[in-house]
Amino acid sequence: MGNSFGRLFRITTFGESHGKALGVIIDGCPAGLELDLDKIREEMQRRKPGQSKITTQRKEEDDIEILSGIFEGKTTGTPIGIVIPNADQKSKDYSHIADKFRPSHADYTYFEKFGIRDYRGGGRSSARETAARVAAGAIAKQFLAAKGISIQAYVSQVGDLSMQIPYQELDLSKAEENIVRCPDPATAEQMIALIDSVRLDRDTIGGVVSCVIKNTPTGLGEPVFDRLHAELGKAMLSINAVKGFEYGSGFEGVKMRGSQHNDAMVKEEGKIKTRTNHSGGIQGGISNGEDIYFRVAFKPVATIMQDQDSINEAGEAVTVSGKGRHDPCVVPRAVPIVEAMAALVLADYLLLSKTNKLEEI
Amino acid sequence: MGNSFGRLFRITTFGESHGKALGVIIDGCPAGLELDLDKIREEMQRRKPGQSKITTQRKEEDDIEILSGIFEGKTTGTPIGIVIPNADQKSKDYSHIADKFRPSHADYTYFEKFGIRDYRGGGRSSARETAARVAAGAIAKQFLAAKGISIQAYVSQVGDLSMQIPYQELDLSKAEENIVRCPDPATAEQMIALIDSVRLDRDTIGGVVSCVIKNTPTGLGEPVFDRLHAELGKAMLSINAVKGFEYGSGFEGVKMRGSQHNDAMVKEEGKIKTRTNHSGGIQGGISNGEDIYFRVAFKPVATIMQDQDSINEAGEAVTVSGKGRHDPCVVPRAVPIVEAMAALVLADYLLLSKTNKLEEI
Amino acid sequence: MGNSFGRLFRITTFGESHGKALGVIIDGCPAGLELDLDKIREEMQRRKPGQSKITTQRKEEDDIEILSGIFEGKTTGTPIGIVIPNADQKSKDYSHIADKFRPSHADYTYFEKFGIRDYRGGGRSSARETAARVAAGAIAKQFLAAKGISIQAYVSQVGDLSMQIPYQELDLSKAEENIVRCPDPATAEQMIALIDSVRLDRDTIGGVVSCVIKNTPTGLGEPVFDRLHAELGKAMLSINAVKGFEYGSGFEGVKMRGSQHNDAMVKEEGKIKTRTNHSGGIQGGISNGEDIYFRVAFKPVATIMQDQDSINEAGEAVTVSGKGRHDPCVVPRAVPIVEAMAALVLADYLLLSKTNKLEEI
Amino acid sequence: MGNSFGRLFRITTFGESHGKALGVIIDGCPAGLELDLDKIREEMQRRKPGQSKITTQRKEEDDIEILSGIFEGKTTGTPIGIVIPNADQKSKDYSHIADKFRPSHADYTYFEKFGIRDYRGGGRSSARETAARVAAGAIAKQFLAAKGISIQAYVSQVGDLSMQIPYQELDLSKAEENIVRCPDPATAEQMIALIDSVRLDRDTIGGVVSCVIKNTPTGLGEPVFDRLHAELGKAMLSINAVKGFEYGSGFEGVKMRGSQHNDAMVKEEGKIKTRTNHSGGIQGGISNGEDIYFRVAFKPVATIMQDQDSINEAGEAVTVSGKGRHDPCVVPRAVPIVEAMAALVLADYLLLSKTNKLEEI
Repeated sequence: MGNSFGRLFRITTFGESHGKALGVIIDGCPAGLELDLDKIREEMQRRKPGQSKITTQRKEEDDIEILSGIFEGKTTGTPIGIVIPNADQKSKDYSHIADKFRPSHADYTYFEKFGIRDYRGGGRSSARETAARVAAGAIAKQFLAAKGISIQAYVSQVGDLSMQIPYQELDLSKAEENIVRCPDPATAEQMIALIDSVRLDRDTIGGVVSCVIKNTPTGLGEPVFDRLHAELGKAMLSINAVKGFEYGSGFEGVKMRGSQHNDAMVKEEGKIKTRTNHSGGIQGGISNGEDIYFRVAFKPVATIMQDQDSINEAGEAVTVSGKGRHDPCVVPRAVPIVEAMAALVLADYLLLSKTNKLEEI
Repeated sequence: MGNSFGRLFRITTFGESHGKALGVIIDGCPAGLELDLDKIREEMQRRKPGQSKITTQRKEEDDIEILSGIFEGKTTGTPIGIVIPNADQKSKDYSHIADKFRPSHADYTYFEKFGIRDYRGGGRSSARETAARVAAGAIAKQFLAAKGISIQAYVSQVGDLSMQIPYQELDLSKAEENIVRCPDPATAEQMIALIDSVRLDRDTIGGVVSCVIKNTPTGLGEPVFDRLHAELGKAMLSINAVKGFEYGSGFEGVKMRGSQHNDAMVKEEGKIKTRTNHSGGIQGGISNGEDIYFRVAFKPVATIMQDQDSINEAGEAVTVSGKGRHDPCVVPRAVPIVEAMAALVLADYLLLSKTNKLEEI
Repeated sequence: MGNSFGRLFRITTFGESHGKALGVIIDGCPAGLELDLDKIREEMQRRKPGQSKITTQRKEEDDIEILSGIFEGKTTGTPIGIVIPNADQKSKDYSHIADKFRPSHADYTYFEKFGIRDYRGGGRSSARETAARVAAGAIAKQFLAAKGISIQAYVSQVGDLSMQIPYQELDLSKAEENIVRCPDPATAEQMIALIDSVRLDRDTIGGVVSCVIKNTPTGLGEPVFDRLHAELGKAMLSINAVKGFEYGSGFEGVKMRGSQHNDAMVKEEGKIKTRTNHSGGIQGGISNGEDIYFRVAFKPVATIMQDQDSINEAGEAVTVSGKGRHDPCVVPRAVPIVEAMAALVLADYLLLSKTNKLEEI
Repeated sequence: MGNSFGRLFRITTFGESHGKALGVIIDGCPAGLELDLDKIREEMQRRKPGQSKITTQRKEEDDIEILSGIFEGKTTGTPIGIVIPNADQKSKDYSHIADKFRPSHADYTYFEKFGIRDYRGGGRSSARETAARVAAGAIAKQFLAAKGISIQAYVSQVGDLSMQIPYQELDLSKAEENIVRCPDPATAEQMIALIDSVRLDRDTIGGVVSCVIKNTPTGLGEPVFDRLHAELGKAMLSINAVKGFEYGSGFEGVKMRGSQHNDAMVKEEGKIKTRTNHSGGIQGGISNGEDIYFRVAFKPVATIMQDQDSINEAGEAVTVSGKGRHDPCVVPRAVPIVEAMAALVLADYLLLSKTNKLEEI
């Protein structure tokens, strides 16, 4: 259970980190969308391992093969099946932890839940699963782009290095110009240096990914449980290593008074707007047309190159240590994953919003 | 759409703040649960308005009537239908905002989405809807209690007054001994004074509700999209005025290194445990048996007793001001709502976990 | 589980035959629909007991109370909550079967499933639950009517008395002119006589309800599992006492050759049509714009006024006999139920169809 | 939408008849099931084309490749991804109908719904999609077998040749001993001769598949909308070419009186049973432990080797005729498909039934 996401634009993923392949089925993508396969591959490149010195040096080509749902370059409205072969499996690397539970991984909980686990690289619990999400999200993004909606994520914090510049004052397109994906070049340099020093310590560190969605139409979001930000939150919290989500004013908004926090409404140049945007583009769970923005907290990667106390399947005390090639900080590669999940949420709610008013049916 | 929550323990709510009644259907509550109606009423009392000087002075009795699903005091496995009449409707109070959009409310977004809105007190977007959640959550709590699981929430922050004591060092049962529901009496007094001063300013202020779930069995949570904390996050973000959610180490965990953050595993007195609990009782989206704890950020209530700039349905500039009786700070009354939503999530995942292993089916 | 139906136009029902009330929540009805409450009441009248000599003489007023979702006469897009009080409960009537399982009822299976049952008149398994469906269906019908779609059911068979006239040659509006709801007056008279004689025998008899849906747009239905006729079939099979469903040529079509059965396509007066309609208006699970028609088989009512062998909860042999007031044949009252369920299916698929093509989004 | 089936044992299929591959993801199969891959392949063989003179002579190897969800021979509780490559695509065969709508196919309705269609062999609407269902159903069958439940389907009617022997008097294992899959050898011979003559006429003919499920535990089925037979009906009606479904006494039961139709309950050798089984093993939508049996009506295959009137995408009158290799009668190959869908339904309800009683949770 739990391997599907969305209602009308719905994905289902499968695959373990060291199985034959990962994959995803997208059900509900509207017909008639001209798909740019290169753009899907670009997104895969942004997520793939081995892309810079601050990411894992594992090599995965992350080629995608589309098996269905496209005819003569366009979506047909039938399910889009995508397979991503696992090229670099190296299962032998994992024999040393076959019966050990790595601290703060899902080893123990999967074993408790299912009574069995695929110990090769975490199996299904590996962040490798997110490759399938990025492929699906790349299609959702193209659907949204056809309707004018754009999504841009970036790294805003690594460890306690937090970029203080509001997104409105940043040129977000610069995020892709450095390997840590922070749009402020000065902060980016510091972040890279920090990650590099953590890596040399055989340690890992956390970070924050921020995301901005522009040009959302009003009316997206379903009261009361399926508020737009509630589903965005769930989407982000479903990404490996995420510990928190906040949108608009977030946890800082707690400290404000209503008279500061409320977003006064104005009409400018014939368009209804809010003067401030502490609401983060969503009021009562429904988009109001302003920018949607949110922040996602990632913990430090659990695999470290140091000895740690743990137990094995027999309940005996053991020592475990990471081996091989792992990310010292997950956020640079998490940027496209955050965007993918945001795109999937928006695509789903855009479809849902087509059935709200009698006169539009 | 969006008025249901849960899969196997599933609720559907209805009702507007000034309609005839609110209500909820609970589908999937296991048969044979002896229901204590007084405990349901107690939860309603914790949420209801007018309970202290720092909450709204509105009067709602919040009586519940159970229409189905119970026979001779026990649940029968059939849907439990509950109605909560709206006693104190006073629709006339709202004529002054009938065609105006209140800043940072859902007025504008509902109007944009549906082309129509019930302007009486926010209609469906009112936090009054959470009364139905509390009734349903009170039943979920009794189900969980029968399986040994307990849930306790409390206020840990109001404005910038943040209680710094970890929950392990608190006597959580003291939370119900003061009107702000903070288990530390000294902080509670300060919080009450702060809310009172904000109220005299005709303003409002935000806060944080923390929650601890004890005695959860291992194995709750569904990889990969329906991780336990992802659904908890969605549940919390679906509560009115919530802007953020974090669990375990949360946003602070970002600053840590993996070597600090990882929870070493040990076996003590025959029981597998973790030495620390930065994971917040959930690893890979599945419970590991440790305490689950999380924090929920609430913005300041949008209704303030001050003039604010806004527009009306015709798009003209207008001034709006709150009237009547509103909460200066929502967190004291939000405590039982947070618990209710947590209980609903846990009940659902407990049922889902019964189908994981072939040998247990 | 299982008390909800539909995806975008979704209902959830609750209530037992002898509890306080039945009810239904409709989630997803589009906003802006002007509701005619009298028409809802008319549908309730068509289903209610005691309406003629060939139906049960029980008295239920089946008044509906709408608690939410309507504002100033129009739907608001929020859930419509409806309660139907149980006026005529008479629980004492059922003491004689409190621990006995009535043959071919759900008594034994509910007891096995839930370990507990509400023995008063079948509790949740009673056909009284369909009152809630009729109320919801009456709203779905008004939504469909606003889009030009009409649904008409009628009785086409009672016992072995089968009306052989194709629906195209009938004036279906005449179905409501007699108490058995057969549009052919001559057959209707025979059917009434047959039911009356069965009733005097203290026995019951089965029947068939036929249904025609006119003016459906093309494109309704979701491949591959959620074909339009598959969901119609499920909807009908979910009605109490239903044993079979067929659409278009149905079981008779089995005997035909492809060359006879295929519906040749033609264009007449600028409109694409089929020359015959063995397909029943649905091809590949998707509506083609022709009339949709289907037949629903109802078994004889299980409650008979005769002694029958059975067992009790202790597993001992007992004799049971029906008491009180029951229908000798269910089909006259099943006509509005079949229409209601058909309307709910069509409303749901009409909404789903709004998200098929990129250019329409 | 609509490409998933089931709730807890849930499948999602993808693929067109002439795309690169078909496939299916199974989410929710319990962990610890030892999978026999040969048995899956056997089921594929039973469905595959070209297996006898009365089926299409198309060649498809229908090899399956399992990409995930299995580790060391056992299910892990994670999604099982299966791909079935399309070996024999021959797309050029279909150019003659590229812009024509074949009568009684889904060509026109897909075009209307999506504004685009994959004309190669029906694309997604082809019965080739059922290969994915058979693969998934073969796994569901193994799960059910581990719990003692067995499913056996067979051909009981071809055209007007209907086998009148009740299933209780048949040796169902003989169904697989002849190419038409009728367990009565004499009738089987007649059926084969009939299909052969129809084929020589360049025509097609319909048929009925019957199915028996043995050893179902009591308590499967979810009131009220998700009755066990309602979901079985939907499952069957979702198979290509199906026009009707009946269970237990079915349409014939309509003619009976309650006193004949009711299944008296008895206790024999310590086991509660019914003397007759007109209920078909299901009462009130819930299994009572008796055999479940039902019948599924298939129309004659729409592709015939004869000229037929139709129109093209431009709305012009055209003549179409089948080419290539098609089944003169679908029922022999439909037998494993019916079993697969029945297995998927039973597997799902078996899991759902684990959450009914408090004391079992």
